Amino acid sequence: MVRSPVWAGRPKTRGLVLDVIRAARSISRVELAAATGLTGATISEVVRELIGDGLVVEAGRGASTGGKPRTLVQLNPVARYSVGVQLERNACVIVVVDLAGRQVARTSFRGVASLPPDQALPLVAAQVEALLTTAAVDRDKVLGVGLVSYGPQDRHAGVLLTPQPTEEWYDYPVAPRLAEQLGLPVLLDNDAAAAAIGEYWMGAVEPHSTYGCIYMATGIGGGVVVAGEVYRGSSSNSAEIGHISIDVHGEECSCGNVGCLENYAGPSTVVRQALATPGLARRLALDPAADDFLTEFARIAAAANTGDPEARELIERSARYLGHAAVTVAVLFDLDVVVLAGPSFVVAGSIYQSVIQQELDRRLFARRAHPVRVVPSVNGSDAAAMGGAVLVLQSELTLGRSLPEDGARPAPAVAGADEAS
Amino acid sequence: MVRSPVWAGRPKTRGLVLDVIRAARSISRVELAAATGLTGATISEVVRELIGDGLVVEAGRGASTGGKPRTLVQLNPVARYSVGVQLERNACVIVVVDLAGRQVARTSFRGVASLPPDQALPLVAAQVEALLTTAAVDRDKVLGVGLVSYGPQDRHAGVLLTPQPTEEWYDYPVAPRLAEQLGLPVLLDNDAAAAAIGEYWMGAVEPHSTYGCIYMATGIGGGVVVAGEVYRGSSSNSAEIGHISIDVHGEECSCGNVGCLENYAGPSTVVRQALATPGLARRLALDPAADDFLTEFARIAAAANTGDPEARELIERSARYLGHAAVTVAVLFDLDVVVLAGPSFVVAGSIYQSVIQQELDRRLFARRAHPVRVVPSVNGSDAAAMGGAVLVLQSELTLGRSLPEDGARPAPAVAGADEAS
Repeated sequence: MVRSPVWAGRPKTRGLVLDVIRAARSISRVELAAATGLTGATISEVVRELIGDGLVVEAGRGASTGGKPRTLVQLNPVARYSVGVQLERNACVIVVVDLAGRQVARTSFRGVASLPPDQALPLVAAQVEALLTTAAVDRDKVLGVGLVSYGPQDRHAGVLLTPQPTEEWYDYPVAPRLAEQLGLPVLLDNDAAAAAIGEYWMGAVEPHSTYGCIYMATGIGGGVVVAGEVYRGSSSNSAEIGHISIDVHGEECSCGNVGCLENYAGPSTVVRQALATPGLARRLALDPAADDFLTEFARIAAAANTGDPEARELIERSARYLGHAAVTVAVLFDLDVVVLAGPSFVVAGSIYQSVIQQELDRRLFARRAHPVRVVPSVNGSDAAAMGGAVLVLQSELTLGRSLPEDGARPAPAVAGADEAS
Repeated sequence: MVRSPVWAGRPKTRGLVLDVIRAARSISRVELAAATGLTGATISEVVRELIGDGLVVEAGRGASTGGKPRTLVQLNPVARYSVGVQLERNACVIVVVDLAGRQVARTSFRGVASLPPDQALPLVAAQVEALLTTAAVDRDKVLGVGLVSYGPQDRHAGVLLTPQPTEEWYDYPVAPRLAEQLGLPVLLDNDAAAAAIGEYWMGAVEPHSTYGCIYMATGIGGGVVVAGEVYRGSSSNSAEIGHISIDVHGEECSCGNVGCLENYAGPSTVVRQALATPGLARRLALDPAADDFLTEFARIAAAANTGDPEARELIERSARYLGHAAVTVAVLFDLDVVVLAGPSFVVAGSIYQSVIQQELDRRLFARRAHPVRVVPSVNGSDAAAMGGAVLVLQSELTLGRSLPEDGARPAPAVAGADEAS
């Protein structure tokens, strides 16, 4: 495969120029110089190299501003690809995206994560291979795989530090094993962090904004992005919003904390409450024995949308608790935007959006300094898998951190060393 | 005054070298090259310039490692000074620190913040002048003043966005006015953020750690530092831990939120609870009419230390609530360390430290990834004022962001522009 000639030298400069081209979609060299603060000569040289590497192409001329019209450059979307894999208790979603972040192929299947990892990962690898073949993507152009799943994790070692999806996954080297099987670099990351960065790459948020993503599938996770990079903290196990407490007098959660948000607002709680509401359970034909509560949750969400008062009350209660926790995250991280992502926001997203917005407008300590806006994810239900693919593109192309072939991630460099000049 | 010749050129490199010298206390040029990733030639040139500017001095020879012993360099502590001013409802603390962060003079006085700002600021300015005169600090060597107080704030405009200390302070241009009166640059910042960065400058935390500071005076604030810089978020109004909710069913706070930590754990609540405990109130001779509840709180804390069971129960309850909120902050920011700073931790700090540590050990989602340690601040009761002074040193010397003469802060530069190379 291509080992990024992108990073022959001056990684920060090349990454910065590529990221500005990506965000602008198409841009002239003069505008690039203005946006990056680099000289025209540096821009010309870097753009020439990027065109030589096939990552960037010329794309017609912009409007004249007096002199002759300027030639525009843009990313060459078919120059590179990456793969996103989301592993969840109930489902596995795999996407292939191009350099512009467009989804070129997608598959999803169920049940794989209830297998032990040494049986599940070969199935995942086979599905990735099949998807690349179906999409007719040249293997040499695939930068790598972003595997996203539950926290906590040891991201550098490529290991999950949670007994989810099942006990056997705890401490199993998921990223190195998948990398061996695919012969591609694999990075492991948190699903909610991935969903968060996906918004940035797709241009759905202002480049310099500070935003949080609430990711809801079977559980509830969170990710925060500051000026285009995922907030990492000490060990990349940050913003686990599902396991912050909203009730100091609440019951103990399996994580060790008390009053965890997930147990108040999560889909399994809403389904349990609906099953305990006889009329509602009967009307929606809810199955108390269903092993996939997301389908039952989607029914309740759909009924809330169409005006069933009991369903609406349950969804609004869940949204109110989420709004309460969103206030905590916004107060602590001083957010501009809260993005709602993941499959469990898809059906009743507009109810969640309006209730969470109300809570932020009423409760926020710094609301005199600036408002916080709640928006749905541009990647909807596939946000985590798409974000996994984006993390690979970002790591390889704009942040200049190569993925090693064996899937384990390099230790961070000494801060400041490569930016000093 | 001296307009930092430090920043004639290459601010990132000079700032990085200065920061490594600061952290190491004394270091050879060879070690500097290793620690920064810069070449020996660059180090020699930068160190020559820093010596020329008087910021760094040679300081004897290190141990030989085979060849001839290496000359060590260190900061010249008397080369520059800065002033920290903390304005609080009950007290104002002013400190003068040298380049090494050592306190060379201190004063504190009461009552000033209950005056309107146009009467209070001239008094503060006069105290700063008097302190600089007493300490015989050359005015030309004073880089500026770090004024720290309540959030929310508009840090760039130098304005408080809170009706604290009194209504007249809301939206009053505190930093520009104080700058005019002193003829020195003044930056405004959050008291808890200042307390947090003070720990870093004093070398009390690992340089690359992610840590949070809980700052408790009359209220409860918070600050987070990532690899030596304050986490800012959208508008520098981050980590306001006193106004995160710990109880979704709690009472509404004046900030608009419900169940705010400050109303469960803060000194005024502890004092109110003690006054409602007749035996305790009598034993400690608590004054229900006292306008300064910090003195009453200190008595309760002292009684808890000496084993009064009722006092101990109240302090432990406050600590338990703080621990609960500390878990939230640690889960969201993925912290390594929690620092306890400010006057209200001084007396019963060891009780707070051990209870908060217990909560983190039991409740933390990512405790399998790494532990979180609770430590007292090295700056104790003066942490905010010391931190205010440190923010000036850091801004001017190692981050390369000059303070403007008029006290208003410059807008942030386009990200990436000055680090691309």
